[in-house]
Amino acid sequence: MDTRFGYPNLLECAAAVLVGAGLPDQIALAVASGLLEADLLGHTTHGLALLGDYIKELDRGTMEKSGDPVVVADYGAVSVWDARRLPGVWTTALAVAEAEKRAGQFGLGAVAIRRSHHIACLASFLEAPARRGSLVLVFSSDPSDAHVAPFGGLAPVMTPNPIAAGIPTATDPILIDVSTSITTAAMFGRTIAAGARLPGRWAMDKDGAATDDPSVIRAGGSILPIGGLDHGHKGYALGLLVEALTQGLGGYGRAEAPTQWGAAVLVIAFSPGRFSGGEAFVRETGWLAEVCRASPPPPDHSPVRLPARPVLHTRRTPSRMACRFGRASSSR
Amino acid sequence: MDTRFGYPNLLECAAAVLVGAGLPDQIALAVASGLLEADLLGHTTHGLALLGDYIKELDRGTMEKSGDPVVVADYGAVSVWDARRLPGVWTTALAVAEAEKRAGQFGLGAVAIRRSHHIACLASFLEAPARRGSLVLVFSSDPSDAHVAPFGGLAPVMTPNPIAAGIPTATDPILIDVSTSITTAAMFGRTIAAGARLPGRWAMDKDGAATDDPSVIRAGGSILPIGGLDHGHKGYALGLLVEALTQGLGGYGRAEAPTQWGAAVLVIAFSPGRFSGGEAFVRETGWLAEVCRASPPPPDHSPVRLPARPVLHTRRTPSRMACRFGRASSSR
Repeated sequence: MDTRFGYPNLLECAAAVLVGAGLPDQIALAVASGLLEADLLGHTTHGLALLGDYIKELDRGTMEKSGDPVVVADYGAVSVWDARRLPGVWTTALAVAEAEKRAGQFGLGAVAIRRSHHIACLASFLEAPARRGSLVLVFSSDPSDAHVAPFGGLAPVMTPNPIAAGIPTATDPILIDVSTSITTAAMFGRTIAAGARLPGRWAMDKDGAATDDPSVIRAGGSILPIGGLDHGHKGYALGLLVEALTQGLGGYGRAEAPTQWGAAVLVIAFSPGRFSGGEAFVRETGWLAEVCRASPPPPDHSPVRLPARPVLHTRRTPSRMACRFGRASSSR
Repeated sequence: MDTRFGYPNLLECAAAVLVGAGLPDQIALAVASGLLEADLLGHTTHGLALLGDYIKELDRGTMEKSGDPVVVADYGAVSVWDARRLPGVWTTALAVAEAEKRAGQFGLGAVAIRRSHHIACLASFLEAPARRGSLVLVFSSDPSDAHVAPFGGLAPVMTPNPIAAGIPTATDPILIDVSTSITTAAMFGRTIAAGARLPGRWAMDKDGAATDDPSVIRAGGSILPIGGLDHGHKGYALGLLVEALTQGLGGYGRAEAPTQWGAAVLVIAFSPGRFSGGEAFVRETGWLAEVCRASPPPPDHSPVRLPARPVLHTRRTPSRMACRFGRASSSR
């Protein structure tokens, strides 16, 4: 589709739909804004395409509509919240703000969230803190679901378990958002709906063979960890780490066998000013960004990119800004 | 080689060699013990095989022999140290202890180290804290060197930039230690020395083609990031994150153009007891470990392993314990 919509119109429309489904204004606006941010970052499987699924969850009462997260633990630089299945896009934004506040007080801070609902695009929380000079990491898993097998095994036991980071530089931040599997469940859903093949052999069938056929995920197959059959022990190890950071520190996960779509989340914020100083930090990250961009590509290839940088550049040129929507698909 | 040596003899011998090269007893013992731990964990490129290189560094005065790290910043839960090129195996062990102490005080704690010498095997620091119930992460990079190109570029700009984690469970911990490139520079050195090929197309030649020929690294080539040419944007992103966490928070790195073999390090310790409780933590990680091990392998394949678990099991059976040494090679 090439149709373009103005940002304020889209935000207002999405928020209104969420208010119509029962969310208070403030929460609806936070969720709409977070989803739209995902679209603007190019993560279109985790943007407004999710709105329909969220409305369904609100309608059937499996996404909580009101109230606040409950503080389960609070000690120094860390806090644990029970999000009571409130919208994860909202509660994660609250957790980022809280972790950032504690980082100002203690140098770094962390908030673990149990029983969150889906948090959509992790990178969408990170541009604003990075522009304020905070280095924020977000980790997420869904203990109710399993698409990724342990390396060497056939039965899926984990979700794609993403790691995200907003890294300040002297100019645009570097926004990292990578699943520890080669791709996401949402991308599988979209590819199946389009009757297409994956861009690589990113799936494993029920017998352990790598394939580009996404439909194997509905026939006992799985999404391969980063590294695939060749060196997937690395993606597997990182996936285990994300499970421990999110469900372990949150104290709620697969051991409780939850059955509803949700998330376990960990947010860590660092205040570079409490380490070696904000200037020293961006001197190093700016230098790194430049040497990466200066690394020559092979002939006839595009220049090296920094994660999210081209998108952030485009956003500063309003006439070039547009939300591109992919085909809606189930997010699970 | 099938020759076996007793642990106490090896420890005493390695420590004596380091003392002979000028290290005080306490530091020599810490370094010898850390290297031996790497061998016991199976990371033989990062164990006693490094001893010769360390002695050379001590002899030429590029590894500092005495004194302590200097505290550059100290604020709440975080500290930054200038290690003054002291042996990194020793200073990292000190940093793990300090981060763990702060985690007890604040829930989590971090120590960033600038101007460290080489720190060898990251996993070697993590078993003891994990058995005490602490979740510790270690990140490392070497700003003096570059073997890994940014995804889409040809010129190397980063090192293999490992991520390690010691994850407590109710039984043996899970010890993760993965470079964000497919393999390490030391493994390249060993493979070249053996006249062999890499196990996969883990290298990139100067023109951007993937190859299993390790010698390309000496002819303008590089080590591919995790994911290789297929999805190496993920390994690249994680490598950038490690650079920011280590050199950015440490405030010293590529921008200062250091030329001597060394390391920038970040240690983060979490006290699960200050989050949701140690019992809840190991309930989740133990459950995860069990579902991973229960995931059936393809016919005629070995069962799924948890990172480092088989090694830790073997170590509890002294008669089966032995140090296996690979061919010594340059660690760089």
